[in-house]
Amino acid sequence: MTLDANEMCAKTTISASESFKQNRMWLNGEVVPFEENARLMRCVEGIHRLALANGAHKFPLSWKVHIASYNNFPTAAGLASSAAGYACLVYTLARLYDLPMNEELTTIARQGSGSACRSLYGGFVHWQRGLSADGSDSIAVQLAPAEHWPNMHMLILVVNDARKKTGSTKGMQLGVQTSALIQHRAKEVVPQRVKDLMAAIDARDFESFAEITMKESNQLHAICLDTYPPCVYMNDVSHAIANFVHDYNETVGSVQAAYTFDAGPNACLYVLAENVPRLLAAIQLAFPNDASQSVEYLKGIPVPPVEVKNGLRDVSIGHVNAKNMLKYIIHTKIGEGPKQLSDEKSLLIDGYPLTK
Amino acid sequence: MTLDANEMCAKTTISASESFKQNRMWLNGEVVPFEENARLMRCVEGIHRLALANGAHKFPLSWKVHIASYNNFPTAAGLASSAAGYACLVYTLARLYDLPMNEELTTIARQGSGSACRSLYGGFVHWQRGLSADGSDSIAVQLAPAEHWPNMHMLILVVNDARKKTGSTKGMQLGVQTSALIQHRAKEVVPQRVKDLMAAIDARDFESFAEITMKESNQLHAICLDTYPPCVYMNDVSHAIANFVHDYNETVGSVQAAYTFDAGPNACLYVLAENVPRLLAAIQLAFPNDASQSVEYLKGIPVPPVEVKNGLRDVSIGHVNAKNMLKYIIHTKIGEGPKQLSDEKSLLIDGYPLTK
Repeated sequence: MTLDANEMCAKTTISASESFKQNRMWLNGEVVPFEENARLMRCVEGIHRLALANGAHKFPLSWKVHIASYNNFPTAAGLASSAAGYACLVYTLARLYDLPMNEELTTIARQGSGSACRSLYGGFVHWQRGLSADGSDSIAVQLAPAEHWPNMHMLILVVNDARKKTGSTKGMQLGVQTSALIQHRAKEVVPQRVKDLMAAIDARDFESFAEITMKESNQLHAICLDTYPPCVYMNDVSHAIANFVHDYNETVGSVQAAYTFDAGPNACLYVLAENVPRLLAAIQLAFPNDASQSVEYLKGIPVPPVEVKNGLRDVSIGHVNAKNMLKYIIHTKIGEGPKQLSDEKSLLIDGYPLTK
Repeated sequence: MTLDANEMCAKTTISASESFKQNRMWLNGEVVPFEENARLMRCVEGIHRLALANGAHKFPLSWKVHIASYNNFPTAAGLASSAAGYACLVYTLARLYDLPMNEELTTIARQGSGSACRSLYGGFVHWQRGLSADGSDSIAVQLAPAEHWPNMHMLILVVNDARKKTGSTKGMQLGVQTSALIQHRAKEVVPQRVKDLMAAIDARDFESFAEITMKESNQLHAICLDTYPPCVYMNDVSHAIANFVHDYNETVGSVQAAYTFDAGPNACLYVLAENVPRLLAAIQLAFPNDASQSVEYLKGIPVPPVEVKNGLRDVSIGHVNAKNMLKYIIHTKIGEGPKQLSDEKSLLIDGYPLTK
């Protein structure tokens, strides 16, 4: 699911000029390596090949580029910052060379960061593995646009934005090489779950969607643990959040929240818009925090207070955790994918970022 | 592997008397339910059946029994206290009714606590699943006595002796019902690993033994995580210990330590006797503790200081963890299984424990 770019996003501006001596890139205002970055180069070269085949570019491909990119969420903390970054980069490169938005771009974005191929579309997106051994036909396709399920919201519980120990790409490669369970998962478990998940999205069946999502998250991390040496992305706080979600769903009597954990300890909780206030209130009770009412702690879409029924705020929770286990919470929702901003939003002035 | 009863053990005394009005039991000096404890009753009834079949008992089976049992390690913290307890109980019942020590006893002990069937033997023991669906032919057999590999030692790093959230029996049942990976593990992974592990024990091949053990531990906990809702026994400290072991083996250039985690956060580290001082010194550096030199912190077999070579204590470690992550360390070794103590060690005087 692509998240709303109003809350969390990457922004990229790219300039090409005959006068540029070399390719250069600034990430969040800092100079970063360019030609030495194989992932970045694969994306640039992929776009060049597409531009050549397309024959429509307005300037020579030999012109060097300057790239400025910003993202407004923690880098390399398992919040898919590289997916957002590479999707934004490839989308912007495609705009620069006047390329049409199509599946070929997802193949290029995938070479920057696997998940980036999905982020080129809004709504729900399916990354298809393809049939060829070299992955050349592995593309992303949109299953449904954001307006199909507009009340699909998310609470991101940020646990720790320290850099993760094992990058997700390296972890997955190690998993493929050493896990005795991953092949079985890929062949026997995933295909059926993909079908079931697509049906749940199609029918806007939150309970099925939630249960498959949680089981998939758990199994992903089970495979990581079965990797040798093991890769561990979830920590004690992550598991406390998963416990909380199961307790919460049991308390409210239906599945109203679903967790998923990526290559880091932070939790992404799916929840329908109408259930956000109650879930957030329960989180605040179960994970007490000194900053619980500050704007730094509760980021993103504002949440109305819980409705008072019969004089009672209907929020009950089980276990109360130790204080300050969460760093902050982001409330966001399903989003529409990349879009081109107006010229005055440019991150480059005469080819250089505002703050060099 | 059965551990040396000199360091960690359960002790049980059972008296039968015509004068006892009811079956009674004391665990660590506290009265515990007897007839209401289905596991306990299954063991007593199993022994009664065996005694009847055997026909050799010196007094009527209708006589009530008084049982006093002590164990000297944390209860229900994933240190197999119930395995030790039920093995000791069944062994003692067998002595009471003059039953021979044979495989039938392991089947009875298994009904108290699965792992208890193994603890009736010393050395390395194999719990065979058997072929029948009802498990009636599931028995334990000794692979090798303790003297086969007498320098096989263990450091138990006790992380937390709070009671675990999910008992191991319940966790395993939930795993069988809900894990999409457990059948594959049971059919495709475990049989080969059992063969390889038996060969490694037979050849006293520590490196193979260690690697299979660590992979098995990781996969067991992967299955627990794939259970729905997930069962999590390891915590952040457990994972820090696993990381330490991989780092340590890499630093020393060979596999000299192997971790295994049961249904709790504590680590059991296999290590050969000659490598204990160096490993322990590295643990002390990597897991600094205010109590590190106290007898309360370092329990069990005394460890000589690390040898000094070329004026240097040859201990290097990577990451140093936060202080006081470990509660205490027990140094123990392979052991010889249950044994009958002399009468003056009895825990019952005239049918009652010393401190009622």
